Formats: sequence, structure tokens, C-alpha cells
Amino acid sequence: MRARNLFSFVAGDSGDWLVRRMDVICGDGLPAVRRLSMVSGDVTEGRADWVLRGFTSNLRYTSSEERKRLVSRQAGLGRDEARLAALIPIRKTEEWWQLAQDERRRIFEETSHHIEIGHDYLPAVARQLHHSRDLGETFDFLTWFEYGAADETAFDELVRRLRKTEEWRYVDREIEIRLTWDGNV
Amino acid sequence: MRARNLFSFVAGDSGDWLVRRMDVICGDGLPAVRRLSMVSGDVTEGRADWVLRGFTSNLRYTSSEERKRLVSRQAGLGRDEARLAALIPIRKTEEWWQLAQDERRRIFEETSHHIEIGHDYLPAVARQLHHSRDLGETFDFLTWFEYGAADETAFDELVRRLRKTEEWRYVDREIEIRLTWDGNV
Repeated sequence: MRARNLFSFVAGDSGDWLVRRMDVICGDGLPAVRRLSMVSGDVTEGRADWVLRGFTSNLRYTSSEERKRLVSRQAGLGRDEARLAALIPIRKTEEWWQLAQDERRRIFEETSHHIEIGHDYLPAVARQLHHSRDLGETFDFLTWFEYGAADETAFDELVRRLRKTEEWRYVDREIEIRLTWDGNV
Repeated sequence: MRARNLFSFVAGDSGDWLVRRMDVICGDGLPAVRRLSMVSGDVTEGRADWVLRGFTSNLRYTSSEERKRLVSRQAGLGRDEARLAALIPIRKTEEWWQLAQDERRRIFEETSHHIEIGHDYLPAVARQLHHSRDLGETFDFLTWFEYGAADETAFDELVRRLRKTEEWRYVDREIEIRLTWDGNV
């Protein structure tokens, strides 16, 4: 795959981000690692312990109005003050993927308020979604978050709120990896 | 990419399908070829003239009700009597991809009736959609159709109707490749 929108999360003994914690929320875990890098393009395992891959894409559920609100508040990745990060790989059940678009949208936003919850933590918590399922990867999504030290409690609350939603009943594997920047300034 | 949902359309001097016609509907063409195969998995160019790749995925616009109607009528690929096929690679404009989900859905079905038009030709014309854009391919979608000789006029009408829709104003490259089965029975 030659796509510019493809990213690899490469974990092992080297990498720009130091792994502070790795918690299994549900399902199988991943081998423990010390460091992780987010790299553009496809990376083969090589000396890495594991590699997760995903692509950024067009929005799948967000309406025009919702997007306007998001764009007006959201921050990009790589901010100087955002030295903490989290990578959350999740997999959804077969039942979720068998739902039609209107059924998934209803659960995603009308009952679970996924977009609205994320909005409450903007611009503090920056976010980038990567799609993995269509690549035949183990996980369906890899979400990458970046925020400053002062916003870690807010980030804790964000993930706690999402995990209580109806949407999360369709998540059957989830790992939360908390990271601290330790690369070149 | 190791995905089971990935397909490669391999074109050159060999292949199970004989190319009867290749018409450029809009945008740049593709080099002329004699034969084409639809292969599961990723195939490198090798001796082929060109290879187009795409993955099948969950439905992106179809509602629960619409899906029920489709499932009750649609036929699968590989029917003995469906010895004609068409591969239609299309690319949509950047403007299309910048639209939000509700805006794309509105154009796709509420004004263009994409699902409803396709439904009129079921079960005669079987269809499989492959997504290419997220792979960094040249085209965004590769749609594969299979039908019997008696239904070719119906297929002509199907593509003619789709090309008159509002949705097609967002198509800026489209090639239509008509094929006849010439492989092993």
C-alpha cells in the first residue's frame, strides 16, 4: 500500500514516545513494549515487537453542522504543549458491522453522543482516527490522542464517558496505551 | 495488505475475461488490454499491463429498510448464466469527499436514487463494489457487474440512468470495460 493516508504504529525498544501504561480494557492484550512511534506509510515488523496500521479517511457519520462545530474548535497533532498521548486500538463486534448505516449513525450519535462528547474536550484533546478493519488488521480502529499534562484528568473523563455509551456495547477488544513524548524537540 | 476482502483486477494478455470494449466516459483512459482477471488478494504488476485494487467493505449509505429490499432480490457473482461482465472504475471529485456524511447521503439516494436505480435491475445484474481511494489507488471505486447476454440492454440502461444523476456530477474520471467470460467452465 502506497497511500499517503496510511500510518503505522511501531512498538518495541525504540521510538519517540515512551509507554507509561498499557491497560487492557476488554479482550486480548498486546505484548508489553517500552516505546512506540507513529510513522507515515507501511512499516514491516522487522525488529519491532508489533506494528498496527490504519488509514485516515473521510468522515463516516459526522453531519455538516457537526463538522462545522468540530472544525471551529479542534486542534491539530504535534502541538509543542501536547507532550502526552494515548493510542487506543479497538475492535467492534460482527453485530456492529452488520448494522446498516442509519442504525450505526443512530447508536453512534443520537444515543451515544460520540461526536458531542469528544467536542467537550476540544481544543485540549486533539484526536486522529485511523481505520484498520478494511486492511485486514486485528483491530478496527486506532485512535490517537494528544494533550498537555494539565489535561490528563479531562482525558480520563473523556474515555470513561465514551465507555459508558450504548456504542461501547459493540466494542469487544480495547487497549489503552498512554505515552509521553521523548523524541527530538 | 493481507486482507481477505482485497481484490485485484489484473489486465494484460492473459486472464479469464476477454475485453470486448473499453470506453472512456470522462477523464483519462487506461492502456488498452486484451484480457482481465479478478483475483483475490494483492497482485503486483509483474507482466500485467495494469492492476487496479479495491476492498469490499460494510455499506456506507444504505439504510436498514433499503438493505432488506436489496438482500431479498440480489444475486451473487459467479452464476453460470452470467457470462457477461463490466468493470467500471470511477473517481469522484475532491468536492465530493469534502462533503459531510448527511450531504453525501442526500445526493446519493434522496436526489440521485442510486440504490433504487440499481434495485430495478435485480436480480439480473449482480454487482460488487470495491473501495480503492483509501488504498491510495488512482480510482476511488471499482464496481464489478455480472449479467447474462439477454440482459445487456438492461445494463446499458442502468449505467445511462446513473450517469444522468446529480451524484454523477461529482465523477471526474470513469472508464467502462465490457467483458465476456472465456475461462474454465
